[in-house]
Amino acid sequence: MKKIAVLGSTGSIGTQTLDVISRQPEDFQVVGLAAGNNVSLLLEQARKFQPQWVSAANEALADQLRAELPAGVRVVSGEAGLTEIAGHSGADYVVCALVGSLGLKSTLAAIEAGADIGLANKESLVTAGHLVMDRARRKGISILPVDSEHSAIFQCLNGESGKAVKRLMITASGGSFRNLGRDQLQNVTVEDALKHPNWSMGAKITIDSATMVNKGLEVIEAHWLFDLPYDRIDVVLHPESIVHSMVEFVDTSVMAQLGNPDMRVPIQYALTFPERKASPASPLDLLKQGTLHFKPMDFERYPCMRMAYEAGRAGGTSPTVFSAANEIAVARFLRGEISFLAIEEIIEKVLSRHTVAASPSLEVILETDAWARLEASAKQ
Amino acid sequence: MKKIAVLGSTGSIGTQTLDVISRQPEDFQVVGLAAGNNVSLLLEQARKFQPQWVSAANEALADQLRAELPAGVRVVSGEAGLTEIAGHSGADYVVCALVGSLGLKSTLAAIEAGADIGLANKESLVTAGHLVMDRARRKGISILPVDSEHSAIFQCLNGESGKAVKRLMITASGGSFRNLGRDQLQNVTVEDALKHPNWSMGAKITIDSATMVNKGLEVIEAHWLFDLPYDRIDVVLHPESIVHSMVEFVDTSVMAQLGNPDMRVPIQYALTFPERKASPASPLDLLKQGTLHFKPMDFERYPCMRMAYEAGRAGGTSPTVFSAANEIAVARFLRGEISFLAIEEIIEKVLSRHTVAASPSLEVILETDAWARLEASAKQ
Repeated sequence: MKKIAVLGSTGSIGTQTLDVISRQPEDFQVVGLAAGNNVSLLLEQARKFQPQWVSAANEALADQLRAELPAGVRVVSGEAGLTEIAGHSGADYVVCALVGSLGLKSTLAAIEAGADIGLANKESLVTAGHLVMDRARRKGISILPVDSEHSAIFQCLNGESGKAVKRLMITASGGSFRNLGRDQLQNVTVEDALKHPNWSMGAKITIDSATMVNKGLEVIEAHWLFDLPYDRIDVVLHPESIVHSMVEFVDTSVMAQLGNPDMRVPIQYALTFPERKASPASPLDLLKQGTLHFKPMDFERYPCMRMAYEAGRAGGTSPTVFSAANEIAVARFLRGEISFLAIEEIIEKVLSRHTVAASPSLEVILETDAWARLEASAKQ
Repeated sequence: MKKIAVLGSTGSIGTQTLDVISRQPEDFQVVGLAAGNNVSLLLEQARKFQPQWVSAANEALADQLRAELPAGVRVVSGEAGLTEIAGHSGADYVVCALVGSLGLKSTLAAIEAGADIGLANKESLVTAGHLVMDRARRKGISILPVDSEHSAIFQCLNGESGKAVKRLMITASGGSFRNLGRDQLQNVTVEDALKHPNWSMGAKITIDSATMVNKGLEVIEAHWLFDLPYDRIDVVLHPESIVHSMVEFVDTSVMAQLGNPDMRVPIQYALTFPERKASPASPLDLLKQGTLHFKPMDFERYPCMRMAYEAGRAGGTSPTVFSAANEIAVARFLRGEISFLAIEEIIEKVLSRHTVAASPSLEVILETDAWARLEASAKQ
């Protein structure tokens, strides 16, 4: 029986994690739930899973929860609440599904507490991969990827040693505008951008798929997670999103993981590894699918992909700038403030103004993050 | 350092095995070589790899070898020679690459000697899977598949437990006549049949690809090797022969192994498992390949596939009859004695005349084999 804390329990990954857990009550016990402002859903989850610890965004919301939950439940709040749940709820497994830099702090708190981690927070590895992986190694804990691409790679590796790996091939659908050339991107709308061909996801990540920033972040995450240099991590366009990623080994064997797009599969694998359990996901019908296509990444068409590799190779605070500038630019695009193509322009501009600091501390990372957000918010 | 004996060293698998071994002299030592009539190649191999034991088809050929090889080399011959090399050469790993029932006896001798086995002999599992797997289990030795499809499945499993497996998907190219309908098969020639689209192989196995008998034998082998019932072993048409086979797990994840058609990759994996080493095979260029197709198996188009499942499910001596009748029918087709479609007719007829014996002994298997060959040789 794994004792699990879910940080970010009311988000997309959080709710799907609880869906997986609810189907295997004999294997998992939820000991902590942390969310932000969605107290009504958090309350519902707390009633269903009966964790000993619950955390909300602030004390006012925590008070609402205290009024509704049994006296024995420890209700905490804010950043300190997340750290408490990661560190003191007795969880031996923490699912980090928070968005942004809050997620990074929780990941570090969970590592400190010696819990294994199901990692869905991108910032943890993108901005602080050197800290996270180093501390995880020292503590002897496992970081299990929740993202479908990294889960695919993790499954392809299945314990095989790094020296057997020639390269990773991360697949990319190409996003909502994959059939448009660069000259057709000037006037695309927010509505168009939000129509992802294969996956139903949040707005930010759907835009990140269209710009390929999401894939760029995944490349940087893969670099840290699997301890491989960038020239051994490739991105392959694969419009069907059936092959979730691949690993080429030194003997020329290529292992691939395939499936329908359903996040519950990688979430569950991160929870049950090294075992597999039945999943509610619908099985892949490869015969109905019939055809799979693979095309080379086009760095001219997707300049954010180029910038991601550049930021990754520059290292230090560079990926933090890439990620933070993008976050602000995407928010501005979603608000109708800037055009789609301005997203990449903003990222490029902010990156060009940044002086990279190597091996940054958490403090420097957070400072850089704030600086990049400010820069990206400036009028074009 | 693995001490290796190669039985069938002058055949296609044997020579490729020695090619793999010659590239990793620090990992492998050849202690025994056994071949049939090709003494000139055997002599060349013996001079290069300097095994302590060498075996040829008969005493006359053995004498030729004795005259050429250093006095310290033990030269033996015939069936007894194979058993001696499998059992007494000091090999801790035996590659069984002999064709036919001779291969089965050698496999059993190698198991008896406690050596791990790289298995390329189809008869060992098709006709005597129950004996081979049972004895291997008792002796605690590993049977590692050399065939590309079974190696692919073995790599997809990578140690995962049988209960995690939902089904195997063995891929089939469709063979030389895959673009022809049944009505177009009546007058196809031997020459046409020998043009396999993807693999360069011996005549018999190329015909077996066109009839789908080869895939049928692989299904039966997979049944024994991976201990799965026939309703959890599917065959998928995949004309490119890039995906060598797949495993669907209970969590809906599908793992696939891909690569260019080069037998040295699965041979090497069987030798180096659980490690991987660099291979001389050319890496897969999935971007150049571009597209992969998957189509359902058509049991009307390929009646031998249906017969293979029927023989497998009937069990006992039934697969022996399927395999032996096919071997004779193919030889007759290659000699121009019968038409292509008569191959399946002969197999069906001989199977229909056979009374299945359950759990047959080696003796009964060999008797059945002889009976089926005689039946299949009868004038149509």
